[in-house]
Amino acid sequence: MLDVKELAKCIIEKAVRPGDKAIDATVGKGYDTAFLAGLVGERGCVYGFDIQEEALCKAKEYLASVGLDREVILIQDGHQHMNKHVHEKVRAVMFNLGYLPGGNHEIKTKADTTITALEKSLDLLLPGGLITIASYTGHPGGEEEKNVLKQYVTNLSSSMYKCVAIEALNQGNSPPVLFVVEKKGTGK
Amino acid sequence: MLDVKELAKCIIEKAVRPGDKAIDATVGKGYDTAFLAGLVGERGCVYGFDIQEEALCKAKEYLASVGLDREVILIQDGHQHMNKHVHEKVRAVMFNLGYLPGGNHEIKTKADTTITALEKSLDLLLPGGLITIASYTGHPGGEEEKNVLKQYVTNLSSSMYKCVAIEALNQGNSPPVLFVVEKKGTGK
Repeated sequence: MLDVKELAKCIIEKAVRPGDKAIDATVGKGYDTAFLAGLVGERGCVYGFDIQEEALCKAKEYLASVGLDREVILIQDGHQHMNKHVHEKVRAVMFNLGYLPGGNHEIKTKADTTITALEKSLDLLLPGGLITIASYTGHPGGEEEKNVLKQYVTNLSSSMYKCVAIEALNQGNSPPVLFVVEKKGTGK
Repeated sequence: MLDVKELAKCIIEKAVRPGDKAIDATVGKGYDTAFLAGLVGERGCVYGFDIQEEALCKAKEYLASVGLDREVILIQDGHQHMNKHVHEKVRAVMFNLGYLPGGNHEIKTKADTTITALEKSLDLLLPGGLITIASYTGHPGGEEEKNVLKQYVTNLSSSMYKCVAIEALNQGNSPPVLFVVEKKGTGK
């Protein structure tokens, strides 16, 4: 229960309702994409971004296998360009940073494009909507990415956003961190 | 959504099922007591602790008003003595530290008895069970209590417990912190 992925889901499912739009900013194997697709249902839509064709192919297969492919639009592009593909407001955006497990570890999210993607996400977010960012620190560049993110999130306007960090306390030297940003106000 | 009380509920309701036993270690106005009572239902039981008769009277009234008094045993004693009153394992324990809102601010939880109550809670917890501790730092003694708690939780055995801290990042100087402890293993 108390790992960052489970906590992200626990928080997201409080906000997302059938018919909503959502974004999986880092599709990977498609598990979060499927989770979001299950929440928005057939009347909703999930936009899923990944730069790796390999990831999108596997995710597509997985989504089809669990019967959740019709709700999803998979887009092979960096998440920093999400505003070129998404032209409507969304209730939730999920980020799961780092590299594709089992894939090429050199291909990973990076602090500067992650921040750009986060800025675009904030623009696309409905009032009352949520962004979750699972950040890992055990790989090269991970600690830097986490620190840049923490600084960015900490400096967000407290009149517009509520931000929290969820950190493991007794899980060794490189525990992942979950950042959550809520846009204040009430959505429809 | 992203305040410590809401996050505590969001996490607790994933673990607690009808028929479970639970503890509200700081009844206060009885809101968390009612929340737990709603989860455990008529076949379950919530033990509620508070040292203030005033709090327990108001909580009793509130619980009756929402039809959740039959599931609750209110006990006027310090939570550090919970093991004298609870003789069965529980799925969840909730702490909401500090003083009673609207009550005497001199009567508040203190680091040493809070730690004792936390130790007793760990003993009473089922595998798979959760403890949430909302800690406030804006009142005298609050910062110390938080720091003592953080150290205690950080030092819990990682083979037996998962521990996380949830902290607001952009909410001024004295944001509350939520500590969550999960006992590893699967309960019945």
